[in-house]
Amino acid sequence: MKNKKIKAAIVGGSGFTGLELIKILSFHKYAEIKFVTSRTYKNLRVSEVFPSYSDYGSSELIFSEDIGKEELETIDVLFLCLPPLKSMQYLKEKITGYKGMLIDIGSDFRINDPENYKIWYKTKHLLAEVLPEFVYGLTEIHRDKIKKSRYIANPGCYPTSVLLGVAPILKNKSVKVSSIIIDSKSGITGAGRKLKQEYLFCSLNDNFYAYSPVMHRHIGEMEQEIEKMYGEKINVCFTPHLLPVDRGIFTSIYCKLELQAKDYNLAESFHKIYKQMYKDSCFVKFLGEKIPQLKDVAGTNMCHIGLSWDSRTHTLKIFTAIDNLLKGAAGQAVQNMNIMMGFSEAEGLAKNGIFS
Amino acid sequence: MKNKKIKAAIVGGSGFTGLELIKILSFHKYAEIKFVTSRTYKNLRVSEVFPSYSDYGSSELIFSEDIGKEELETIDVLFLCLPPLKSMQYLKEKITGYKGMLIDIGSDFRINDPENYKIWYKTKHLLAEVLPEFVYGLTEIHRDKIKKSRYIANPGCYPTSVLLGVAPILKNKSVKVSSIIIDSKSGITGAGRKLKQEYLFCSLNDNFYAYSPVMHRHIGEMEQEIEKMYGEKINVCFTPHLLPVDRGIFTSIYCKLELQAKDYNLAESFHKIYKQMYKDSCFVKFLGEKIPQLKDVAGTNMCHIGLSWDSRTHTLKIFTAIDNLLKGAAGQAVQNMNIMMGFSEAEGLAKNGIFS
Amino acid sequence: MKNKKIKAAIVGGSGFTGLELIKILSFHKYAEIKFVTSRTYKNLRVSEVFPSYSDYGSSELIFSEDIGKEELETIDVLFLCLPPLKSMQYLKEKITGYKGMLIDIGSDFRINDPENYKIWYKTKHLLAEVLPEFVYGLTEIHRDKIKKSRYIANPGCYPTSVLLGVAPILKNKSVKVSSIIIDSKSGITGAGRKLKQEYLFCSLNDNFYAYSPVMHRHIGEMEQEIEKMYGEKINVCFTPHLLPVDRGIFTSIYCKLELQAKDYNLAESFHKIYKQMYKDSCFVKFLGEKIPQLKDVAGTNMCHIGLSWDSRTHTLKIFTAIDNLLKGAAGQAVQNMNIMMGFSEAEGLAKNGIFS
Amino acid sequence: MKNKKIKAAIVGGSGFTGLELIKILSFHKYAEIKFVTSRTYKNLRVSEVFPSYSDYGSSELIFSEDIGKEELETIDVLFLCLPPLKSMQYLKEKITGYKGMLIDIGSDFRINDPENYKIWYKTKHLLAEVLPEFVYGLTEIHRDKIKKSRYIANPGCYPTSVLLGVAPILKNKSVKVSSIIIDSKSGITGAGRKLKQEYLFCSLNDNFYAYSPVMHRHIGEMEQEIEKMYGEKINVCFTPHLLPVDRGIFTSIYCKLELQAKDYNLAESFHKIYKQMYKDSCFVKFLGEKIPQLKDVAGTNMCHIGLSWDSRTHTLKIFTAIDNLLKGAAGQAVQNMNIMMGFSEAEGLAKNGIFS
Repeated sequence: MKNKKIKAAIVGGSGFTGLELIKILSFHKYAEIKFVTSRTYKNLRVSEVFPSYSDYGSSELIFSEDIGKEELETIDVLFLCLPPLKSMQYLKEKITGYKGMLIDIGSDFRINDPENYKIWYKTKHLLAEVLPEFVYGLTEIHRDKIKKSRYIANPGCYPTSVLLGVAPILKNKSVKVSSIIIDSKSGITGAGRKLKQEYLFCSLNDNFYAYSPVMHRHIGEMEQEIEKMYGEKINVCFTPHLLPVDRGIFTSIYCKLELQAKDYNLAESFHKIYKQMYKDSCFVKFLGEKIPQLKDVAGTNMCHIGLSWDSRTHTLKIFTAIDNLLKGAAGQAVQNMNIMMGFSEAEGLAKNGIFS
Repeated sequence: MKNKKIKAAIVGGSGFTGLELIKILSFHKYAEIKFVTSRTYKNLRVSEVFPSYSDYGSSELIFSEDIGKEELETIDVLFLCLPPLKSMQYLKEKITGYKGMLIDIGSDFRINDPENYKIWYKTKHLLAEVLPEFVYGLTEIHRDKIKKSRYIANPGCYPTSVLLGVAPILKNKSVKVSSIIIDSKSGITGAGRKLKQEYLFCSLNDNFYAYSPVMHRHIGEMEQEIEKMYGEKINVCFTPHLLPVDRGIFTSIYCKLELQAKDYNLAESFHKIYKQMYKDSCFVKFLGEKIPQLKDVAGTNMCHIGLSWDSRTHTLKIFTAIDNLLKGAAGQAVQNMNIMMGFSEAEGLAKNGIFS
Repeated sequence: MKNKKIKAAIVGGSGFTGLELIKILSFHKYAEIKFVTSRTYKNLRVSEVFPSYSDYGSSELIFSEDIGKEELETIDVLFLCLPPLKSMQYLKEKITGYKGMLIDIGSDFRINDPENYKIWYKTKHLLAEVLPEFVYGLTEIHRDKIKKSRYIANPGCYPTSVLLGVAPILKNKSVKVSSIIIDSKSGITGAGRKLKQEYLFCSLNDNFYAYSPVMHRHIGEMEQEIEKMYGEKINVCFTPHLLPVDRGIFTSIYCKLELQAKDYNLAESFHKIYKQMYKDSCFVKFLGEKIPQLKDVAGTNMCHIGLSWDSRTHTLKIFTAIDNLLKGAAGQAVQNMNIMMGFSEAEGLAKNGIFS
Repeated sequence: MKNKKIKAAIVGGSGFTGLELIKILSFHKYAEIKFVTSRTYKNLRVSEVFPSYSDYGSSELIFSEDIGKEELETIDVLFLCLPPLKSMQYLKEKITGYKGMLIDIGSDFRINDPENYKIWYKTKHLLAEVLPEFVYGLTEIHRDKIKKSRYIANPGCYPTSVLLGVAPILKNKSVKVSSIIIDSKSGITGAGRKLKQEYLFCSLNDNFYAYSPVMHRHIGEMEQEIEKMYGEKINVCFTPHLLPVDRGIFTSIYCKLELQAKDYNLAESFHKIYKQMYKDSCFVKFLGEKIPQLKDVAGTNMCHIGLSWDSRTHTLKIFTAIDNLLKGAAGQAVQNMNIMMGFSEAEGLAKNGIFS
């Protein structure tokens, strides 16, 4: 089996997500990286540019500027780690003739409806005709569809942290939700490696603040998927914040529920619903009334979920923690690849957290 | 004037709040510290125990174990920086005969109604008869009452960050508020100097999480004051979180408003309301649609407030930032003292932020 | 082969080093953890106490209070992660009859000579008769002896960072060293999980300072090993400092060399010496004139080394970076186990860094 | 007196040092800022660009692009906060006719000898003829000269932390020093607000490393001043490191001393020398054998100094801590201004530390 590893290529390999993907795939039993592109670092060894990546005796991995048409045809799975709009530009040029699988970690193919896409991204979609072939890759929710799909739109980091948290309650037909308010806090890697004064150490150390308080683009995917789960459209109120840590998203979700006065043992029944939903998902851990901590998930593909019921305001508080670069990006991408390829879902992803 | 400085005493001077108070008063033009108590450090110089405090040539300040009855009678203003329950125990013993002013930075006298106190603190109040003499010291809201009062219950750090944020909208009679959800994030000094594994550097660095998700005691004061402002009781849904920074509270408040479809220029009218309310308050800065940052208020007595209107969910997002040890504790205490004594409100408190 | 995994036991499994060892061994192909002890957490699941450790479907690992005599006899390799003096107390009781291998990550068996031990640890050694059976487990230097030994004294974290840095220059007979000054900076995990005010987040965040400026116990092992390398005793001047990070030791070593005026191409020849010495060591990476960074080694078993020649003062500056919990403790322990057992040296240890 | 405040101007007011200077002078009793320049932020209010600066009701401070010739003539003291080479370019144009005092916080006038300047700055000095008029503004050492001078070259941050540490021992004629090795660790504000990938939060958080290991320009000033103190040239071996904190420099200095075997009570006599030298300096605090901590000096103009004698290697370890933006830059500049103007040396600078 080992001598029949699938061939992977990564486009945009020098961002945080790209590097994380390289690190995962370099230890994957059944996959090997054939190409990884970076314009900035073309022809340089990955381990030289990023010394935290070690070759460990394997053949040297070198950034290339691009992947040629013929080279692309030898690839089994193509990962795109590109900024908004860039994935569809890339694919418009390259997709014809490409026979392999495709996992777009960017945001261009997450919104199913091109009209809706226009609302959130303020531009016309360039590949509307291909959109229907993409499955939204929130693994635990769309596992069956992912298994049969060729193209995956990997979810955004915030939507992953939100949707895994609300799915059990929204899919449960007996609960009526009257509003959802989401307060997310993300580590700085979520902003990428952009050279802006606001991302300097001295700007962020000991600091904290909210940003994009209206119409953050991730709301589009959240509402799309919430509608699929709940059967009705719910407008969510979402605010992202920047945490002075490298990695991790902690999301606090406030779901106001419409319940009858008699629903006394509610808390317990919530626990049942959550346990039931994730019983076969090795990367979701339901903590009951315990509250997740960023430290416990950093460096892992896990999503930890905890619940708290505020009976005075009829609000279910859902707390989730993920590593934004793993379950929120590269980790979930490989999880999806594993499912598409028929590998064990956790292959290459079973790791303990980095903190103690 | 200078040779007629008022005499201050601090009970519980070795916690974060106590030390902050020492630092402020040591540069106050019209006050001097006569006593500062600490059982742990009795007879030691403050500058030896806390080298970040400098004597700068002034007479040496030394921790004493306690303040005698006669000594207390020479005091003009007494600050209590004690844990829950300890302030009322202390006062029960000492208050008879004490003629000076009193500012309790602890939590024992914030709830006006002893029955309500029992709900939030799970114990009977020991000095219910004195409760009516205390004014809730949220300076910008109760300035007039503070001026005439002798006893101040200094607000909690979270309530300060919340109440200054919601006051303008709640006091405005034309707006109807249907729910208030509050997501607060506090620096670690908020937890005091407790020796617990969860407060070790390695437990908190790179970490983030929510705590006390139900029935945090500060909800009691928030709802009491909200009722005074709004005229009606509102149950608030409040969740505190721990940030990996030393100082500061950033609070995100989600107020769902009931508004008519025609209220188009709403955002603008909110701005007017906020500007109007705080136009004479030198320690509240309204930023309009800009979002406050912890770094800008750390080391100051300021409260920065920013607004964002989410028309899709009819939610007014209110963001506030304070330094939990200053506007959230020792700073506001001195601000109240200044008002009670007839000094300039900003005396000893006008400082630039520590970060750049 | 897989169904013939060796059986490991860990005594003192709830400290930082113990937990790290658990995490490594839980993914080791040829080893499995049979026992892990912790008095504090006895009978609790490891993954419950430390949620950053995931069971990933394997049989549950549970802390036990102790390991019985008969149980111990079933063990192939015993790891001790105990504070000073505790390892020898433990072994004094248990070692008779134990047939397996032993790796002591504590400090009791690192000093070969019991008289010298007394100088540095201010107490008589309890098992002087067993001392000669221990090999000092600095893998890259004593690989051959380790291969044939049964008992390993795993080096201290500081000595590892120092000795790997100086070994090439000291073992080279043509260079005369006139003094060695060492300035080390360690992350806080080096201090363990002790509940002291000085290890609280608020005491260490934004802080930095030196500690134990005279007679730090690690000097004993450094000088012992330096004498073995250099053939002569050199008294080193060593100062440890505390860095506000979780993991990692960065060491700056200043070696004053006695050289002839003609030695022009010195820098280059140093590079050759270093490359040569570590050419077969997969966990040491020589960077030439590049300076190592903590971030690149955190989460790995690597030691990165960089050099700089200050011709004005005839000083060779050697910079090394390791992860104190891995190459400085649990990682090197497993590396030694691999060598003793005949496994591939990197088994279970080949990992990319956690930072980007 | 207050209505006769001296008029100050700041050129380069938007860097870390410039902002710090603004903050100090805005609370100075006897000085007021007339102009502060910034090309980037011209015509913007300082408090808008840097919300951590508060106007507190004073007249608004606005960045101007430049200061006109006539405007300059109204100024009593001019502060330059400019990068290397820029101060002398600025002065070459403007100095003719300027009658006031000048404090250059940049590096152009620190090296007295233009030939020596060329060695360290690799370029010809543009104003060699004015160099002799500058006094090196290390206040505690050159206080008398400063008092009588018109032009000050404010010392670099590293040299300040080094020279205050070694001055007492070097000026003492009875001690012979055979080598000086200096290991400095600086907070990130030392690097200014440069937009480089290496200064991003994600590059520095949890990281630590040395930089510029050979020929750092600050060595030039150190050796110049050491020669003045010691009477002989000593080549120092200096290495700066970057700490993941905003502010502060911690310097560990290793002085190898040539001493007679009989010098037993050496440690004590060192203490006397240090106490004696700084007994009238309110901004230097000698801690004896206690080790300084960054937290205690951050936000202050203090230099804390501690000693440790390593008799095994005849090395005096000197540890110093300063705030690089205050005693290492803007604070010392104002201290010098105070002395030049005949104000109290501590005016505007007596502040407690920001940390607890």
